[in-house]
Amino acid sequence: MAEIVNKTALIVGSGPGISASVARALAGQGYRLALAARNPDKLRDLAAETGAATFEVDASSPAAVSQLFKDAQDAIGLPEVVLYNAAGRLRGPLEALDPETVRRVLEVSAYGGFLVAQQAAKRLVPLARGAILLTGATASVKGFANSAAFAIGKFGLRGLAQSAARELAPKGVHVAHFVIDGAVRSAERPDPATAPDSTLDPDAIAQTYLAVLAQPRSAWTWEVELRPYVEVF
Amino acid sequence: MAEIVNKTALIVGSGPGISASVARALAGQGYRLALAARNPDKLRDLAAETGAATFEVDASSPAAVSQLFKDAQDAIGLPEVVLYNAAGRLRGPLEALDPETVRRVLEVSAYGGFLVAQQAAKRLVPLARGAILLTGATASVKGFANSAAFAIGKFGLRGLAQSAARELAPKGVHVAHFVIDGAVRSAERPDPATAPDSTLDPDAIAQTYLAVLAQPRSAWTWEVELRPYVEVF
Amino acid sequence: MAEIVNKTALIVGSGPGISASVARALAGQGYRLALAARNPDKLRDLAAETGAATFEVDASSPAAVSQLFKDAQDAIGLPEVVLYNAAGRLRGPLEALDPETVRRVLEVSAYGGFLVAQQAAKRLVPLARGAILLTGATASVKGFANSAAFAIGKFGLRGLAQSAARELAPKGVHVAHFVIDGAVRSAERPDPATAPDSTLDPDAIAQTYLAVLAQPRSAWTWEVELRPYVEVF
Amino acid sequence: MAEIVNKTALIVGSGPGISASVARALAGQGYRLALAARNPDKLRDLAAETGAATFEVDASSPAAVSQLFKDAQDAIGLPEVVLYNAAGRLRGPLEALDPETVRRVLEVSAYGGFLVAQQAAKRLVPLARGAILLTGATASVKGFANSAAFAIGKFGLRGLAQSAARELAPKGVHVAHFVIDGAVRSAERPDPATAPDSTLDPDAIAQTYLAVLAQPRSAWTWEVELRPYVEVF
Repeated sequence: MAEIVNKTALIVGSGPGISASVARALAGQGYRLALAARNPDKLRDLAAETGAATFEVDASSPAAVSQLFKDAQDAIGLPEVVLYNAAGRLRGPLEALDPETVRRVLEVSAYGGFLVAQQAAKRLVPLARGAILLTGATASVKGFANSAAFAIGKFGLRGLAQSAARELAPKGVHVAHFVIDGAVRSAERPDPATAPDSTLDPDAIAQTYLAVLAQPRSAWTWEVELRPYVEVF
Repeated sequence: MAEIVNKTALIVGSGPGISASVARALAGQGYRLALAARNPDKLRDLAAETGAATFEVDASSPAAVSQLFKDAQDAIGLPEVVLYNAAGRLRGPLEALDPETVRRVLEVSAYGGFLVAQQAAKRLVPLARGAILLTGATASVKGFANSAAFAIGKFGLRGLAQSAARELAPKGVHVAHFVIDGAVRSAERPDPATAPDSTLDPDAIAQTYLAVLAQPRSAWTWEVELRPYVEVF
Repeated sequence: MAEIVNKTALIVGSGPGISASVARALAGQGYRLALAARNPDKLRDLAAETGAATFEVDASSPAAVSQLFKDAQDAIGLPEVVLYNAAGRLRGPLEALDPETVRRVLEVSAYGGFLVAQQAAKRLVPLARGAILLTGATASVKGFANSAAFAIGKFGLRGLAQSAARELAPKGVHVAHFVIDGAVRSAERPDPATAPDSTLDPDAIAQTYLAVLAQPRSAWTWEVELRPYVEVF
Repeated sequence: MAEIVNKTALIVGSGPGISASVARALAGQGYRLALAARNPDKLRDLAAETGAATFEVDASSPAAVSQLFKDAQDAIGLPEVVLYNAAGRLRGPLEALDPETVRRVLEVSAYGGFLVAQQAAKRLVPLARGAILLTGATASVKGFANSAAFAIGKFGLRGLAQSAARELAPKGVHVAHFVIDGAVRSAERPDPATAPDSTLDPDAIAQTYLAVLAQPRSAWTWEVELRPYVEVF
């Protein structure tokens, strides 16, 4: 395992879906939680349920991310598990994409992941333990037509994850990247009654995040793909 | 999960190492086990420990593999988890490899995996449940110099795994391929005292095999890489 | 370039399509050619056109492949370019594939490639020049449902190619693998009039084979994918 | 081929090395050239040699890139071949990287590539011809330790390339990405006398860029790796 000593976790890009399921699963194992999002109002119910501290953050701001880690540490102690789950999406023909929106997508999808991973590394490398988890998508490994911005951002985040895994794993910090290949079910997007389990149950996703967290360091995984059993790939 | 109903597992290419650790982990969960190897004498201690039935098999013989599944079913019931763990290795310059030995390496590494996966599919597809697990190596994804035969065999087995995953997952059978990237520790090859956990603990490997087995079908993985935290990749 | 000194080429698995186009392109550059196939009758017209010597070979027989290289050398001199273009295909559900046919597919697709590459390496490594070209398919990098045997064979051939490239390139022999991703047009399968260039023109494929052959050794490619501009990938 | 009608090319991120060699090779085929760089003074000699028009550009500025395409079109006509060759590098432990420098690396390496590809697409898609070439590096496909920023940028550019290839190829525009895996020789970094051709000759690189440009649309490549024959990979 990543030899977690103090069960503390910071989740950036929180909201319903994967973040909420991971938060609940960690809380169920006794973790103290810090949740951060651009709009922390959305975290209220989850915070009430899990006892998490909540924070507002612009993940693309170096100062804001640095401050977040200080505030989170004040609230729950140094977070030994850090999950980056934020992403920006944008679809459309390459010619039609708004350049400023593309810049923002890259900032949220890739640069924010760098800022969060860097702050985590500053704290975890000296301890030689802990884990940095990064959430990817199908677009992390396959660049689709009409999705250039998302492809740049998600390929970029995967580059960060692979580089950080090569760099930090030998220093005792487990870096893992999750390729979420399929639609994640939610209140707005329920699993179709006619095709049960054709969407990803966020609790099922969280189960694998925690299985990776539980891996002994003699057999670590840096990347896992997850998709519904009927998903075409 | 692969919705295992009857906890029964067949492990082909059994021996110390990964097979033994997976066998013990499954036995610990209440599985009835069948173990098969070219030389079943080597299985005696493990069988005594886990209560497994043992079988002799030439995994490259269609008739022998077919018979094995019948015999295993007689002994433990239809195996709902099937692990193929056999491989042949051969090193040397391309020019110097003995063609008949290369043929044998391919038969054990890839063709045997096909025969076992096929017999498993015949039984599991009608049930729409169960799992087929295939053990790969670094050579599954990287063809090294002086290792042509092993590269052909292991790339080939990975081709089988990916094809079978695409074909059988929608039919309810979980196919997973494990890229074991590093040396597996054993009695003959203990973990170096000066570099703890620099080799793969087979029990740690087995932990991830079982985590994959436990995945709900809404979030399946078809491939996992495992390596020691200090392994260069 | 692979520093070809004597323009001599052996093409194994010859027939219409890629082999014929490469043969014509090489002949146009002044190469002497040897063509080998299981059924050399099919080579008659191409041999007449290109002045090639023709040979019958079972590419999965070590003795036959060894003899082929001797005979080809007698006819045209030591072949400095060797192309392996044979493959066996088989489709159907995993459960329904005939094991003996699968064995044959693997022998033709992967093992035959090994035998030919090995004989080529024996002759080219001492010269520190020459090229070994291997023809792959979509199935070399993507294992499709209902195509297990082809996936094993083509993944396996790619493993050979990557291993041989790592091993032989530093010895001066250029190994290249071509992923042919799409349907190759032919007399039986002409390019659709309504969708021109939606199939691969074998002459266009040959153009890239020759471009790779012409690469200076300071900038070699070991793998190239080729697909029609409208092909979905 | 990308069916070039007017031999016009714009190279962004010009300088010695790959850009200069491609410029010379294109000029040798009769292309009119526009060269753009942050510091156009460095382009003087190459412009004199090739007759190119030169432009100053900050490739990470949407307005500047848009203006560049207008100015280049005024000077040489609509560029039918566009090469993006700019990149920012940064090395160091993840914890030590300066966030603002990382942001700049991503802007130059990935976002600038997007801006240039977008302007090219706006002009080439309506013509249904032309080519967009993007230069990658080893870091495009392998994230190294102590190289997080470069990995994010180069993975990101590759995501753009793959997305754009899927999107624009069916519209008649050839998108190609080149993975330059090794050191490119230069006046400052000559090929070692003791290991000839152990560095990439930029003229050899340019030869393959032009071979890809010459591919008929029935057999296009979207990615090519190039490395010296002795390079370890």
